[in-house]
Amino acid sequence: MPQAAIEYARSHRDAFLEDYKTLLSIPSVSTLPENEGDVRRTAEWLADALRRLGMTRVELMPASVHPVVYAEYRADSVKPVLLIYGHYDVQPVDPLDEWRSDPFKPEVRGENLYARGASDMKGSMVALLKAIESLKAAGGIPLNLKFLLEGEEEIGSPSLPGFIELHRDLLRADAVLNCDGSIYGPDAPSITYGLRGLAYFEVEVLGPKQDLHSGVFGGSVHNPAQVLCELIAGMHDAEGRVTLPGFYDRVRPLSDEERAVLAQVPHSDESWKAMAGVKVLWGEKGLSTIERIGARPTLEVNGIISGFTGAGAKTVLPAKALAKISMRLVADQDPAAIHGQLCAYMREHAPETVTWDARELSHGHGALMRRDSAPMRAAIKALEETFGVKPFFKREGGSVPVVSMMQQSLGLDSIMLGFALPDDGIHGPNEKQHLPTFFKGIEGYIRFLLNLAEAVVPADSSH
Amino acid sequence: MPQAAIEYARSHRDAFLEDYKTLLSIPSVSTLPENEGDVRRTAEWLADALRRLGMTRVELMPASVHPVVYAEYRADSVKPVLLIYGHYDVQPVDPLDEWRSDPFKPEVRGENLYARGASDMKGSMVALLKAIESLKAAGGIPLNLKFLLEGEEEIGSPSLPGFIELHRDLLRADAVLNCDGSIYGPDAPSITYGLRGLAYFEVEVLGPKQDLHSGVFGGSVHNPAQVLCELIAGMHDAEGRVTLPGFYDRVRPLSDEERAVLAQVPHSDESWKAMAGVKVLWGEKGLSTIERIGARPTLEVNGIISGFTGAGAKTVLPAKALAKISMRLVADQDPAAIHGQLCAYMREHAPETVTWDARELSHGHGALMRRDSAPMRAAIKALEETFGVKPFFKREGGSVPVVSMMQQSLGLDSIMLGFALPDDGIHGPNEKQHLPTFFKGIEGYIRFLLNLAEAVVPADSSH
Repeated sequence: MPQAAIEYARSHRDAFLEDYKTLLSIPSVSTLPENEGDVRRTAEWLADALRRLGMTRVELMPASVHPVVYAEYRADSVKPVLLIYGHYDVQPVDPLDEWRSDPFKPEVRGENLYARGASDMKGSMVALLKAIESLKAAGGIPLNLKFLLEGEEEIGSPSLPGFIELHRDLLRADAVLNCDGSIYGPDAPSITYGLRGLAYFEVEVLGPKQDLHSGVFGGSVHNPAQVLCELIAGMHDAEGRVTLPGFYDRVRPLSDEERAVLAQVPHSDESWKAMAGVKVLWGEKGLSTIERIGARPTLEVNGIISGFTGAGAKTVLPAKALAKISMRLVADQDPAAIHGQLCAYMREHAPETVTWDARELSHGHGALMRRDSAPMRAAIKALEETFGVKPFFKREGGSVPVVSMMQQSLGLDSIMLGFALPDDGIHGPNEKQHLPTFFKGIEGYIRFLLNLAEAVVPADSSH
Repeated sequence: MPQAAIEYARSHRDAFLEDYKTLLSIPSVSTLPENEGDVRRTAEWLADALRRLGMTRVELMPASVHPVVYAEYRADSVKPVLLIYGHYDVQPVDPLDEWRSDPFKPEVRGENLYARGASDMKGSMVALLKAIESLKAAGGIPLNLKFLLEGEEEIGSPSLPGFIELHRDLLRADAVLNCDGSIYGPDAPSITYGLRGLAYFEVEVLGPKQDLHSGVFGGSVHNPAQVLCELIAGMHDAEGRVTLPGFYDRVRPLSDEERAVLAQVPHSDESWKAMAGVKVLWGEKGLSTIERIGARPTLEVNGIISGFTGAGAKTVLPAKALAKISMRLVADQDPAAIHGQLCAYMREHAPETVTWDARELSHGHGALMRRDSAPMRAAIKALEETFGVKPFFKREGGSVPVVSMMQQSLGLDSIMLGFALPDDGIHGPNEKQHLPTFFKGIEGYIRFLLNLAEAVVPADSSH
């Protein structure tokens, strides 16, 4: 049966690619109000695709802004239930002028397909749908499925915690497949067992009541842009550590066993530099790159704006300055506590010459998963069968907040199985998906679903 | 004769105001390419007005971007020649949403007229033209005049040094009136004898080749926004002093006599705070506010931008960060040397994880003028006659680079006589001109021209 499904997949690559491009051409940017209709069209496109696959219950369920696409497939009650998570929204495209092709007109160049969302994460979502189509064509879908595809991931999944809590019975399952993942390289499969959380803030410093003439007032009024720079500068010490009070208190230390596991990641600082386009790496002293990005929390300035930023010279002393600042968190840091630490830092360091505000925009917990469960073994086997080499374990720097939500609400670890690559340029210009990896991904999903159907014994056959 | 001219001025206030509003309604923003035609229309409007006043030679002379309006009036060769400087361009209007009325639809609210350029400096320019009209109607213009009105002041007067050097003979004069000035308060006339210079830069920090995902790369790649903040934070020490190497080396120290003169400025920190809209003032320790803004150099962040600055959350690690940074300079600082100091600071402090660039956008020297010259006495007398109180001397925080150019090329001090007020909000939203001060300004100019015609003996009657 795997072979028949895999042959179907191989002989339908052109058609699969066309469907993939169609999905990418809808600009489902969840953060921009002007794209609200496009986000909904994307949800409807997916619902139609799921109906064509024979799902027995397909519906758009309301959320804060953009709907959840829910679907079910009942194969056999003695087979396990797999809950599948994905998101169909994408990041904004700015800076647009740095894209070599239109972000919503997918273009193949070499082995890659370029478009916003190609890698994060329409590629893996389409790969999974095509794996299911291949299994159906080759004899049948081997287990029970539930789909939860959200449209608000890139705005911090504001509805998801409530949605999952509210629908705990509906979402009951034996395992979770989260397609929002990546492998280490085209020939280096990997399984992510750790994810960082996120706490995202807007920090604003307010000075004079309006922009002032910098000559008339310069030297007598504290410049809010300067103050914000000083506050941001103080958020790291000379060792690259974050200085917010208590920031590291709840960080789970790395065990020797886990450091050994992470040391097996075939990471090269040289290729990491090439991928980022920098000459020298940076970060907390005394830790490897893999440890810093996977197992340690960080603080980033995602954006900053103040005063005059057009072409030419304008001599203002700005009235205010704003920064977007986010922290990547690791288990067991609590995002709500981070907001308190940020405010404590601001209270301690902001001068009396200005006022300030630090607003939380979104947050999510980090997560660590068991490396020895039956679903995890099914995934490891599927990757080894597909790539011909054993996958290694890694922790990832990015955030997939739904993973910790599902741990907390449903008591289920997620299997992070997706086919993005680290150099796909997600969230930036010229995002791409490596097409050979996309096609291997379809085969990896076929094998995972078959392995899981065999390996997992349903906990409860009543769902 | 003063009385007849002043009565004419008083009886024509409505008509004067209408002409003033017409001039303000042309958006002569010199820095924006889309306003190039408007800047030219403004020059033509002024040329027509000068022709109507009977100037004998009126022409638009080419400059880098926007023309110089040049005009002459020959009254009598035994009378002195006054060279008049003004600029007819204005600053951009952003942030537009903070204006209570359209910046190019002048609106009177209370005693003030609100429009971009109302105070800086179409108001004083119109006041002078109306003073000349009043003198002409009341018997004749009492001295020889030359006009140099530029359209590039708000972009740093790129053509002016060359223009003045090239036209040294044409511009020969016995005194210079620079209308780009202000008085201390509606009932507190003052004369500015010191101006700060300006050196304006764009500082850019470049990190990864493109925006990166802050989760994937955060903690391994140095964030250019964070680096730029750290560099800016280091540009001031805890005493509020600028840390660029050698920055204070050529600053002319304040003498006890001059500190005593400046102590007579009826300055109140309380009203300065109210004007700026801040609760606490700031600046270099150990100096009065008047000393800090007039006699000491400063460094300001005029703008900063990096990464994602729209609504919502985007988790990028930005590829680059840019700041507009300008220094207000005092005699005898050299703007070219400041560029060297900035680059030396950057070389010393920028980490090896990034590259950087510091480009000069514009610069101008500071200036100090004699307080005891005949033209200065003519101005002091005119203000005292108009306001009923003796004016005091002050040094100003802003920059009027043409003043030092005329000192250097023509050997002439400028009389800074203009009728802006410090709370006019120039360069910011809701710029305004206090109308009672505008009308007093017309009378002040009438008296200044008459006093000057009497007091100054022409150095050379051949021009």
